[in-house]
Amino acid sequence: MTEPAAAKRPAEHPEVFDTVSIVGTGALGGSVAGALRARGLARRIRGLDPQHAHIARDAGLIDEVCTGLPALLAGADLVVLAAPVSVNCALVAEPAMRTGLGAQACLTDVSSTKSSMVAAALAGLGERRGRFVASHPIAGSDRSGPGASRADLFDGRALLMCPTPECDADVVQRVESMWRALGARVAHMSPQHHDLLFAEVSHWPHAVAFALAASIGEGPRAEDARRYHGAGLRDTTRVGGSPAGLWAGILLDNREPVLAAAAAFRVELDRIESALRDGDRDALMQALARGERWRSAF
Amino acid sequence: MTEPAAAKRPAEHPEVFDTVSIVGTGALGGSVAGALRARGLARRIRGLDPQHAHIARDAGLIDEVCTGLPALLAGADLVVLAAPVSVNCALVAEPAMRTGLGAQACLTDVSSTKSSMVAAALAGLGERRGRFVASHPIAGSDRSGPGASRADLFDGRALLMCPTPECDADVVQRVESMWRALGARVAHMSPQHHDLLFAEVSHWPHAVAFALAASIGEGPRAEDARRYHGAGLRDTTRVGGSPAGLWAGILLDNREPVLAAAAAFRVELDRIESALRDGDRDALMQALARGERWRSAF
Repeated sequence: MTEPAAAKRPAEHPEVFDTVSIVGTGALGGSVAGALRARGLARRIRGLDPQHAHIARDAGLIDEVCTGLPALLAGADLVVLAAPVSVNCALVAEPAMRTGLGAQACLTDVSSTKSSMVAAALAGLGERRGRFVASHPIAGSDRSGPGASRADLFDGRALLMCPTPECDADVVQRVESMWRALGARVAHMSPQHHDLLFAEVSHWPHAVAFALAASIGEGPRAEDARRYHGAGLRDTTRVGGSPAGLWAGILLDNREPVLAAAAAFRVELDRIESALRDGDRDALMQALARGERWRSAF
Repeated sequence: MTEPAAAKRPAEHPEVFDTVSIVGTGALGGSVAGALRARGLARRIRGLDPQHAHIARDAGLIDEVCTGLPALLAGADLVVLAAPVSVNCALVAEPAMRTGLGAQACLTDVSSTKSSMVAAALAGLGERRGRFVASHPIAGSDRSGPGASRADLFDGRALLMCPTPECDADVVQRVESMWRALGARVAHMSPQHHDLLFAEVSHWPHAVAFALAASIGEGPRAEDARRYHGAGLRDTTRVGGSPAGLWAGILLDNREPVLAAAAAFRVELDRIESALRDGDRDALMQALARGERWRSAF
């Protein structure tokens, strides 16, 4: 994993794209649109999203609603895939993608998992495979839809790119400077490393938050728990209010790394629970301190 | 559980205590001192805390540092136990407490668990047992020490009191109006109900956050995880940075309810993990939706 030396300074002359096409104009795709527009970096923005595109257009995030890939891709010099990861993977496998994508166009995505996305792009894009580079802005939210988009969403946030040897150099450079122009701090890592890391720092923690919320919400004190709790529960379970369908897709897409993160978590959970069951104060304190050490240094 | 009708209106003529004595002048005890002082509700505030009392005095939170129970209790009309729960329980068992506490004094605590505290007070206070009523302000923090105290900590926060038939009516009334004067929304419940509820909404979620932080922090990607993560991990693990010693005490004190909460959590975790292992999208989505339903309604 490398963090380019220039990653932290803003691009001095960011490229202005003529036509940016975005698939999925929800919170993340809508934020890409809003951020490009706020900085004058796109002359025209098109969106494809059966659920959200009209809302995004009415909100002024995009200019034009497309209903199919050919119209979306025609003349686009930057295409951003911001649909759920399974949809993004299916899109790069469609013949209309490799025939419609211009030879000079840049294609990127904003999915939370990278190995399957990169594999799908390499397998599906044929002669255009060099035009794709994978991106993951670390700027998720438990809110969804274009109403949750923010033009400053990427400002100061980390953004991971996973270029492969197959990527054309100009694509990596142009997509990276686009993200930097939106304020992101860009770093590179392999898709495999990314997915192991994000299983641990995002995907499995989401599963834990869903399980914790369910264990209370399906229990006999659900109503009291809603009324009487502190900031601790609010924070610990916050991402457990995220869309279940979206997260089922992410967890399944990154299944093996997530199961490995689950196993590591269960080792620590067992350590705490057995010390508690045994009434062993020293062992319990040591088990808790393993987490405290890392987290209190944030 | 009952929420008194008057709970939400501010006390119109809050009682001004002559001498308030606080055991434990860290974040919570220091906040009680600061909040009483900011509203002019205590003429004099004494503190007992080998670690923090001098800091609290230098910060202007308390007037006087005591080194033993007799000096702390002499002439005090309100005594607040804000040490860790095991210390609070040990204190009410000390002969110096039942001999030193005035016949008209009010005694309360701010511990996170209530059954053991109430039992210890009933067993230890002898003729003064009616002078104690248990309190739990839902206003914890992962920060500790008098420097983390805030005079507005209780403003708008829920505060649970667990009066028993043994409590003198004037104690319940005076302690309740004190909390209301500090801005808290007071509700009553039994110590047993409180502890079952707080095992679910606070104690076990802390254990989960510690385990999650440990599973990452003790793993091979700990350093990358610190650099590249989103708000989700920050929130999900936040209370995992709390003091391990304090939380070992709370978990042990409320052991059976916490183990019951752990069991309910593991049922939900197993549901998610086995759906993921089986690659069963529908089952996974349904498992996640059990949490989403409850949490997204916050």
